[in-house]
Parts: sequence; C-alpha cells; structure tokens
Amino acid sequence: MRIPSSALDALRDIVGADAVLLDLPARAAHSADSLERVSALPDVVVVPADAAQVARVMQWCVAHRVPLTPRGGGTGYSGGAVPVLGGVVLSMARFTRILEIDEHNLLAVVEPNVITADLQAAVEARGLFYPPDPQSMTECAIGGNIAENAGGPRAFKYGVTRQYVLGLEVVLPTGERIETGGRTVKNVVGYDLTQLLIGSEGTLGIITRATLRLIPKPEARATLQAAFPSIAAAARAVDEFVVRRVVPATIEIIDGMCLDAVERLLDDASLQLHGIPAMLLVDVDGSQAQVAQDLGSADDACRAAGATWCRVATDADEREHLWAVRRQLSPALKMIAPYKVNNDIVVPKGRIPELFALVTDLRERYGLPIPSFGHAGDGNIHVNVMVPDPGDARQMERAEAAQADLFDGVIALGGVISGEHGIGVTKSAYIGRNLSADAIALMKRVKQAFDPHGLLNPGKIFPE
Amino acid sequence: MRIPSSALDALRDIVGADAVLLDLPARAAHSADSLERVSALPDVVVVPADAAQVARVMQWCVAHRVPLTPRGGGTGYSGGAVPVLGGVVLSMARFTRILEIDEHNLLAVVEPNVITADLQAAVEARGLFYPPDPQSMTECAIGGNIAENAGGPRAFKYGVTRQYVLGLEVVLPTGERIETGGRTVKNVVGYDLTQLLIGSEGTLGIITRATLRLIPKPEARATLQAAFPSIAAAARAVDEFVVRRVVPATIEIIDGMCLDAVERLLDDASLQLHGIPAMLLVDVDGSQAQVAQDLGSADDACRAAGATWCRVATDADEREHLWAVRRQLSPALKMIAPYKVNNDIVVPKGRIPELFALVTDLRERYGLPIPSFGHAGDGNIHVNVMVPDPGDARQMERAEAAQADLFDGVIALGGVISGEHGIGVTKSAYIGRNLSADAIALMKRVKQAFDPHGLLNPGKIFPE
Repeated sequence: MRIPSSALDALRDIVGADAVLLDLPARAAHSADSLERVSALPDVVVVPADAAQVARVMQWCVAHRVPLTPRGGGTGYSGGAVPVLGGVVLSMARFTRILEIDEHNLLAVVEPNVITADLQAAVEARGLFYPPDPQSMTECAIGGNIAENAGGPRAFKYGVTRQYVLGLEVVLPTGERIETGGRTVKNVVGYDLTQLLIGSEGTLGIITRATLRLIPKPEARATLQAAFPSIAAAARAVDEFVVRRVVPATIEIIDGMCLDAVERLLDDASLQLHGIPAMLLVDVDGSQAQVAQDLGSADDACRAAGATWCRVATDADEREHLWAVRRQLSPALKMIAPYKVNNDIVVPKGRIPELFALVTDLRERYGLPIPSFGHAGDGNIHVNVMVPDPGDARQMERAEAAQADLFDGVIALGGVISGEHGIGVTKSAYIGRNLSADAIALMKRVKQAFDPHGLLNPGKIFPE
Repeated sequence: MRIPSSALDALRDIVGADAVLLDLPARAAHSADSLERVSALPDVVVVPADAAQVARVMQWCVAHRVPLTPRGGGTGYSGGAVPVLGGVVLSMARFTRILEIDEHNLLAVVEPNVITADLQAAVEARGLFYPPDPQSMTECAIGGNIAENAGGPRAFKYGVTRQYVLGLEVVLPTGERIETGGRTVKNVVGYDLTQLLIGSEGTLGIITRATLRLIPKPEARATLQAAFPSIAAAARAVDEFVVRRVVPATIEIIDGMCLDAVERLLDDASLQLHGIPAMLLVDVDGSQAQVAQDLGSADDACRAAGATWCRVATDADEREHLWAVRRQLSPALKMIAPYKVNNDIVVPKGRIPELFALVTDLRERYGLPIPSFGHAGDGNIHVNVMVPDPGDARQMERAEAAQADLFDGVIALGGVISGEHGIGVTKSAYIGRNLSADAIALMKRVKQAFDPHGLLNPGKIFPE
C-alpha cells in the first residue's frame, strides 16, 4: 500500500522521527517470524516508547485505514507477526521493563517485551516461580506468550500462560486504552476480556502491560530419563503415571527418529541414545520429600510399562545433561532435512499410541521422514514433516498432504490441530476442520466487535 | 409480556405439553434465586429434555422476540436467574447426568444440572478430585458454577471453576448449537470461547454439556485452627504463609462478630470461640509427608503472627468439627439480623488489614453490624451488611450507602467488587466504578455479537 508523506509526518509527530523506519533492511527485518517461509514487507516499522504512543499509532491507523501488525520477540511458528497486508509493523522492542515483583501478593507487572527467561530468573532469585517454559524462552517475549497462550513442557503440571495472567493493559483496534482484570486472582466483574485476549494472536488488542501471577519456587527438582522398546510402551508409561496419581512437572516423549538425529548431532555416548526406539524425560518437583516419593513412583511407572532402563539426575548439571537430548532437537532435525512443516497437534493423552501409529502410516504413505516428540502428559506432540528438498514442488505437496491427513486423523482422535503455536497464517486454511462454521462465524463477529475496520493483524486465524 | 396461545402451542410441540408450565406456583418457584429480595415472574417455565430442544426453544424465542433466562440450581446471590423482563425461564432440571468419568484422560463429561457435591463424590470414589467448592456445593449445579465462575475456599491452592473447564456445548442466543474447546488441556485453535463463556452469567450462551478437568485426589488432608488477638494479626499470618512459601488448600479468615454469632448458634464450648477477635481455618493437603511438613510451617506462620493458640485435626470427623465454625456462618448471621446485603469483594491479599479497617469504619459510620469472613488467601472477603429491620427504608438506605462506600474503598485498595457471586442485577449499578466506560462499551459490543436481539438473560451485568 502507499502511505502519503503527510500521514508519515503525523506518525513521526507521535513517536519521533527515529522511531519511524522506512528503510528496506528495517522493513525486511520485520517481515517474518521463526517460520521464515511466510513473509511480507511492511510499509513502515514503528517503534513506540509507551502505551500512549501505541494508542495514538492505532488511532492513526484507524484514521488512515492502515493495517497494523504487532511484533514481540518474533519467535512464533505460525506467521502471526507477518504483516500479510503490509502497513505498519508495530515493534514492541522498547517495552522491556519488569516494572514490579510483588513478593507479598505473588505477582509481577511487566512490559510485553520482557524475555520470558529473564522474568523467570528475576523471580526465581526471590524464591518465586513463573512456570510457562516455551522452548524459545531465552528469546521469546511475554507479550507474544500471552498473545499465543504459550505452553511448554511444564504445562503438564503447571498449566499454560493463560493460568498466569491476572490483568492486561491493552490498546484496542479502535484506539482506546483499557485495563482488563487486575491484581487479584478472583474477579468476576463483567466478561473476562483478559482470557479472551489471551491466545487471540494479536488480533483483538495490543498488549502494553501485563500483571502475572507467580507461585512459590519448588524446593527441589529431579529428572528421570527412561528408554523404551517402542513408542507404544513409552505411551503406556504415561498411563501408568496417571494410574499412580503422580503428576510430574513434565513428561516429554521423544521418538527413535529424533533420538537418532540427536545422537548424530551431539556424538556423546554418555547420552546412551543408540538404537533406542523411544524415550521419556520426566521432571518431578516439589518439597524434597515429595520429589523422593515421586521419583520412586515414576521409576515404577516406567518399569511397569516395559522401560529397558531408567536413570535419575538430581543436580542441575546432570539434569541439564539429560535434557540436552530435548534441547538439541531443533538443530538435530535440520540434519534430517533442511525444511520442516512444523505441527503441534494435541490428542487426549490416552490416544497417543494411536497418534504415533498414524505418524508411522503417514511416513510410509508419503515417503517423508516425520520425527515426532513432545509433551506426552498433555497429549501435545510436535509432528515434524521433513522436506529434504523444499525446492521440489512435489515434495512440498506431499508434505502438505501429509499435514492435512494428520489433522483429519487428530480430529478423529478427539484432538485439536494446534496446542501451542497458534493458527496464524499457516493453519488458517484448516480451522474449518476443527471448528464448526457456526463457531467460526461467531468468532468473526467477536473480531468485528473489537475491530470493526479489520485493521489489527489482519489475515490471521480465519480463512479468507 | 403477552405470549399468544398459538406461540405457546409451538412451544409445546418442541418440548411436550408437560414441560411448558404456566401455572402461578411453577412461575413463582422460578422467579428468584437465593437472594430472594429481587424477583420477577416469568410468563412461562420451559423444562427441555435435551440440547436439541434447548436450541429449538431459543429459536422460538428469537422468532417471537421473547426473552429467555436460563436457570440451574437457583442458588446464586446476584439475581442472575431472575427473569427481570419476564418471558421464558428455561429450567435445566432434566440435565442431571454424569455422562462420563475418564480416569485415563482425567476428565468428566457432565450435563449442567449435576450438583457439584455429587460430581465431587463420584470422582473422589475413583481417587480423582474436582476442586471448586462453593459454599452451596450440596445444592448448586455445575452449569451455574461455570456461568458464574464459582470459587470457594480451595480456590487459593487449586484455582476457580475457570481452571477446570476444558470444553462446553452451548446453545447460542441466536439458536445455533456449538461446541467450544474439547477434551484436551492445550488448545489454541481460534478464540477461547470456553473462557469467554465462563463467568458470563448466562448472557452469552446456554450450557448444555461440559467437559471438566480432574486431578488426582490428594493423599492426605489436615486442618489447622488458629485464634488471633486481632484481625490485623490474622492477616499478618497470611503474609507469614507467603514468606514461608507454603500454599495451603484454604486460608479462611473469620472476624469476631461472626465467631460470636456462631458461638450463640452452636453453643458448643469445645469450639473455643468465646471472646476471640479473629480466627483462621487452614487446610493443607498433599502426600502424607507434604501435609506433615506444611502443618509445621502453618503452625510456625500463625505463631509468628501472634496466634494465641493453634490446634490441628487430621481425621475427617475432627476436621468437620473445626469447620463447623465456617459452615454454620450463614444460619448464624441470621441471628444478628434477618436481612443481609451480601458482598464478596476482593483486595490484593497484602491489603486485607486495610479492608478490615474500612469495615470497622463503615460499622461506625452507618451504625449497622457488618460481620465479615472469607478466603484470606485470595483476598476474597464476604462483607455482610446486616439490616435489623429490612422494612425500615432508612436502614436499607444506610445499608446501600455502606455498600457503595465499601466498593469505592475496595477499588481504592486495588480490588474488585465481586470475586465469586457475579454482577447479576444486584451490582450492575456499580460496575462503572470498577470498569472504564471503554471497557463496558466493548463488553456490550461482545454481547451484541453473541445476542443481537438482546434476548438471553437480559437486564444483567450492564447498567441500563
């Protein structure tokens, strides 16, 4: 689109000339998220300094009917921060302050571009805990975590980002600034706009401040690593945990194709990955006594399901060593193929064996490697359809077809097509498989109630 | 309003003649909730048998522009089930089945009129746990719990109803049936309509089925009762818990005026209530080892804050005996005065002492008894403005004025005017004190997106 120069002058009046970026390198740096394959150049990048400026920029967009796409850490995997219709990318890069950590009321007030791991370190230094732990936590920002309702391994025990947001300050697509929620856990005054905004992928409001709930930091942690003769056996172990009424902080499952890739990448025999068809990484936490008790139950559960071996780490370095298998998965998968169609589907956890059977079937049907791993406790599995030559249109078509079949199979198992990454642009064509036409129509009316001109992060979630 | 007889015939065709009640006793029985003082007669009470019938009744209401007010257990305190504009009261009395308890996926599927305590008993028999425990749990229904986002003492550790709803089947005010959420904890497909519906007080949809998250039942429980020389000392104990990073299941606070009333009602010297200015009732739960550890910390915390005595109960009968103080509060308050203006305000828990100072001030200023108790861990306090003679207009005016001052004070402390009961009709005049005009306008646009004709539970939440 073409923005008249007089309008750009008005924008400079709002945020200052140096916060209005028109050069190609700046625009290109704000054209994609971690997905990379989907990108679009914004016409202008605006870097506001405070919420008042954000509101005035939004009002400017309304006046000039210019679309606006907010951007936080840029680590998303669904194209949520891609300005598909051009216009303004609103970079929240200057909103980096932790404003308050209140140890008495167990809450933190933060600006949206605080890095998740930085917040965690700051609160843990005071004996408190902010549990959500997306894989990208050293780079992603709280604002994006809220917009996408980010999860992570610890969501099994502690829940997702949604459970830790008490209140928000947002700028609406119509330009008003409102506060939602507050500083209390209980609050039933009016509709819960906080909860509606969480996971709305930046389409209903621009988060300018968040009040987050904290909990006490667990006294102790330990990790159990267990090898299994098959994915089915590892999945059975998840049920054995449930039967024993044990709730570990994480139950991560990793299939043999992933383990093989990590073995090749790290070349570390002490990890004992060779020839293992499936692995679980289980963290338990709580009081010292609770951890000891849960470790015993976890070991029992794994052995009852047929684990070939289990080992335990209690000190931080040893635990990090065992977790290397999980942390190095992303670079390891690049050794299988340069490109992946990244899915984060969810099935009821009792149906994980059927999901993995489906994955095996898709591998054979489409002739593509599909290494899979994820959060077994939640049934939230990352199914990566790898494309050896992304320049080959037929391979890409096969990958897309495998993804479509995966989604149909997941829905037939009572699951959903995304548990963490969001719909964005990459999955919008598929939401009609997961949601009824009536539900989608209602969501669009909600969007319209917030954003009558369709200016905030357009082209996301809903198919055109 | 006047409903033509031909229209009533159409209604009988939908649900059967015996499910369309026009007689005055039936209408009167559906005219009020537990609040009693606010009531309105419906023109007709309809008792559908299934979700398909609910949808057709709603469609009938749309066709004839008749308002509809859904009704569950009828135990609300904010007039939410009162048909203030007449029309249809839709009784969910036939939706009483627990459809499924899935021990592997830790969930239950229920119809909305399952009584909360019945569900709890059913899942606890299988070693599972549904934590939300509103005071009315032996009479209230899950559907109403969801509509109001019910809390209860255990919300301090376990969270409110919102944290336990995975999915809903609802009939929209426009007559469509949709499903929201599903059977998985993680789900980021589209806007979270489940969360928006929770706490919407029956104004956005009629719940016809709910999928609820369960957790393992705690292995052990114990209760600590502690007496304090002042409310300020009891409130300090809450902070001492936080400092020790202990999270009890409940921290209930009860003031001297309440204790005095219970003492008179029960006349049981073993409760040791005489002359005590403030009391805490603390439940801890978890593994045996955890409970032992937390009981020690709880005792330390209370003594550090100046408790005059503490005692502990570990078996169920003894625990119930200590809890009688709390359970008998409602009948006990009736001994103070026949009528109460019932508030459930919330303040950040660090500000509880200031809240009780405000209550003392209001007692003096308005010359009314204001016994107060509640969920100290959440800062959610029930402040009951008692009216000795509700027939005396000046007393009622003083009670209303005390309530208005209470709300202003609570908001000044960073709190909210309702934490559990909802806004309904009784607090709608006050939401403008808690929410900005822009936020209310947005909520009304959301309501309009769901209910363009304004037919579902009209006259609630928003001031006219």
